[in-house]
Amino acid sequence: MSDFTLDPRLKNDCHLLGSLGLSHLLLVNNALLPWFILVPNTTEIELTDLSPQDQATLLEEINRVSRFIKANFEISKLNIAAIGNIVSQLHIHLVGRDPADYCWPNVVWGTTEREPYTSERLNEITTALTTQLGDLFSNT
Amino acid sequence: MSDFTLDPRLKNDCHLLGSLGLSHLLLVNNALLPWFILVPNTTEIELTDLSPQDQATLLEEINRVSRFIKANFEISKLNIAAIGNIVSQLHIHLVGRDPADYCWPNVVWGTTEREPYTSERLNEITTALTTQLGDLFSNT
Repeated sequence: MSDFTLDPRLKNDCHLLGSLGLSHLLLVNNALLPWFILVPNTTEIELTDLSPQDQATLLEEINRVSRFIKANFEISKLNIAAIGNIVSQLHIHLVGRDPADYCWPNVVWGTTEREPYTSERLNEITTALTTQLGDLFSNT
Repeated sequence: MSDFTLDPRLKNDCHLLGSLGLSHLLLVNNALLPWFILVPNTTEIELTDLSPQDQATLLEEINRVSRFIKANFEISKLNIAAIGNIVSQLHIHLVGRDPADYCWPNVVWGTTEREPYTSERLNEITTALTTQLGDLFSNT
């Protein structure tokens, strides 16, 4: 993925946790809820323009990260979305939601309330990813 | 799909256009932009809890409807999302977006502005689906 360039707005808003087979895995710097983002290594803008092979790989990565969120955070619902109205680089939001969170039942997009992660919490999450996702996750 | 029950809030907000292989195809009654919804015939709540077979089928239905939207409406971006914070019945939003639309670049969820479809426009869309999606689409 050496020629991959992450959109500067994603880079600014998120921690880059590492890589999966196709996608980079980001965490929005907002500890108020678990908000991960997958950024596939592609120049396509639309999910539906990916090759069938890349779609299948991305779907598996969505499944794995979704299960990681359900297993590691107190959530009751997942929000999975490809939007891209502002940042067109293809990216998939994976957000764990709960009636107790700061913007339930509204969507997180457009909200501005944020609580930055501590380095300790970030390390915990990265360690859990390394342990639970095994070879799929590369902490680079 | 005889035992399928559509959530009454989806039923109230949308026109039921017909069925694909796995999903019912709805159109939100808002002619301000093309806003389709796929409702898979399942009792699962989360996309990632579908069987691999159903996930693959749903992905293909997402692809087909996405291409239909791109081919038939003046849009520049697709928003594809499974949210379900309010209506938990699994449903996938497929929304054609454009800088000229009423809420760009914000997301459509949470907006209340609506313009109902005319019966003529609804018939046009259903006819186009029948023509372009072929055997996949059943206008029931």
